[in-house]
Amino acid sequence: VGGSPQTVSDLGEEALVERIVARLGPQPPDEVWAGDDAALLRAPPGDLVLTTDVLVEGLDFSWSWCSGVDVGWKAVAVNASDLAAMGARPRHAVAALSLPASTPLERFDGLVEGMTEAAAAAGAAVVGGDLSGAREVSLSVALLGSCEPGRAVRRAGARPGEAICVTGSLGGAAGGLVALRAGLLEGGGDPALRRLAARQLRPRPRIEEGVLLAALGASSMIDVSDGLLADLARLMRAGGTGCAVEPELVPVDPDLSALAGRAGDPRALAATGGEDFELLFTIDPARAGAARSELARAGTAVTRIGVVAEGGLRFGEREFETMGELGWEHLRKR
Amino acid sequence: VGGSPQTVSDLGEEALVERIVARLGPQPPDEVWAGDDAALLRAPPGDLVLTTDVLVEGLDFSWSWCSGVDVGWKAVAVNASDLAAMGARPRHAVAALSLPASTPLERFDGLVEGMTEAAAAAGAAVVGGDLSGAREVSLSVALLGSCEPGRAVRRAGARPGEAICVTGSLGGAAGGLVALRAGLLEGGGDPALRRLAARQLRPRPRIEEGVLLAALGASSMIDVSDGLLADLARLMRAGGTGCAVEPELVPVDPDLSALAGRAGDPRALAATGGEDFELLFTIDPARAGAARSELARAGTAVTRIGVVAEGGLRFGEREFETMGELGWEHLRKR
Repeated sequence: VGGSPQTVSDLGEEALVERIVARLGPQPPDEVWAGDDAALLRAPPGDLVLTTDVLVEGLDFSWSWCSGVDVGWKAVAVNASDLAAMGARPRHAVAALSLPASTPLERFDGLVEGMTEAAAAAGAAVVGGDLSGAREVSLSVALLGSCEPGRAVRRAGARPGEAICVTGSLGGAAGGLVALRAGLLEGGGDPALRRLAARQLRPRPRIEEGVLLAALGASSMIDVSDGLLADLARLMRAGGTGCAVEPELVPVDPDLSALAGRAGDPRALAATGGEDFELLFTIDPARAGAARSELARAGTAVTRIGVVAEGGLRFGEREFETMGELGWEHLRKR
Repeated sequence: VGGSPQTVSDLGEEALVERIVARLGPQPPDEVWAGDDAALLRAPPGDLVLTTDVLVEGLDFSWSWCSGVDVGWKAVAVNASDLAAMGARPRHAVAALSLPASTPLERFDGLVEGMTEAAAAAGAAVVGGDLSGAREVSLSVALLGSCEPGRAVRRAGARPGEAICVTGSLGGAAGGLVALRAGLLEGGGDPALRRLAARQLRPRPRIEEGVLLAALGASSMIDVSDGLLADLARLMRAGGTGCAVEPELVPVDPDLSALAGRAGDPRALAATGGEDFELLFTIDPARAGAARSELARAGTAVTRIGVVAEGGLRFGEREFETMGELGWEHLRKR
């Protein structure tokens, strides 16, 4: 009835929980989602995979350039990407949402909508959660999935001589962040800038691609969340190998040209920018062509960027060894 | 080398993750815990149960009366209690820990130690997680468990005429909170006060009891987390029934006498105090004796406090209907 916008404290916990439950969608007759002490689920066939990620206001996102829907979507999508990197399919998510009493109800509804939409897009469902007060918004999602028995693709497994490949293109999410922070999207922005922003705000986990790559025999895999070089170093370290990657082969997001240099060299952004959530994997070179053609049928490019090797981590003429020089460490000294 | 105590920012994210992994204990040869994109787990037999709960600094706990170990323990225990209330066994936990860069390393280590100890005590293991910066400490745990196929005990299921029973005793955790906040434990406190504090800080989920009660045919069950009356109202509402509970039958924690009235009437505390994590259940009256004797063998008392009935919720002479009057709503207007 006019006045200031409604906040979550106008409703209280029970009413908010009912609001969430109303958005979860129909549950299978033999499962119990929200409304009990825990969700009761039929076990999916195969092996289980379980992961969790948290997004924190001010650190992982800012309300000055994110909506509630964006944050809810991303909280689920980043977890789904972790499962994709195992070659697994997401099934069931639970979410712990902490938020100030002053949170606008519209933002709360957006958070829930974003989570349920991202879960549905990933073939999963949000089946329960917890709601708490807090000084800042923080959203933890845990995601349970499944994969073919014995078929999960690990980080460890790369062997010298194998091809190193990556799906899609890189640098777009980091470019989107630059565009959002600079306010370039205000008033709409051009289509390329809008695509960059979408890569930052609404990442699309490569689930079908991960399942295909597991079936095709990828020997190791990781999702590119902290930047190509950082995640490549993790992948190689897990496998106990080195690599030789050709910088000029790295697929650069073509929309970065719309930033016209505002974010520096697009090639540097593609090498170090985080949150593209592409899949970085190694595979027997004899199968790299099949991976490329199978994923092309699913609409996704696969680019061979280098080779697994003995020794150090080589990126063109450079050697990179430690994680500290690369990507971004949340808790590092500033 | 002397100076101020180490903080998490002295180590950085990678070193902290390694510190966690070192505490997780040995993983089965066919599983992958931390160190990959997601934990890879063999599916336990039976149905799956999944739940999540978050603890937030300043709201759920205060560093003035909690250690890191306490908070880590409780974050896992409250989830294990949710599974216990389904008659399920905890198996695998993932944790999302957000904390300020200034967090003392000793507190960080305590959080991890408390989580792994509570998981081990519950027959489960912490298998992965996420670490993030934040302005306040917040710890979300998601817990996956399993139960006999078709044997999960739901909140819905109570039928008029059934006995309403509760395990153990009530009010102790709320009394412990009073004692801790009043500083009564400084210098040790007497044994009864220490037991009350332990009920608040190191709750023991009733896992074996929950499994036994599921096998004995409990028709509905909930854990007492928000207070007997609040959780009783939830249980009855889920079953679409009313109840008649005798206040004088409610088992009051005997250690509350050590508070000497500082927390008000112990009977009121037993009726409304939260976080005892006892199991409140309904059962065919013909089986209530078997429940009592079976759980007595496991060292746990079962007290019959009332009967499921048509109509309203009666607690002695009082009627209680809405959740708003009872327990504690995190996001209510203050």
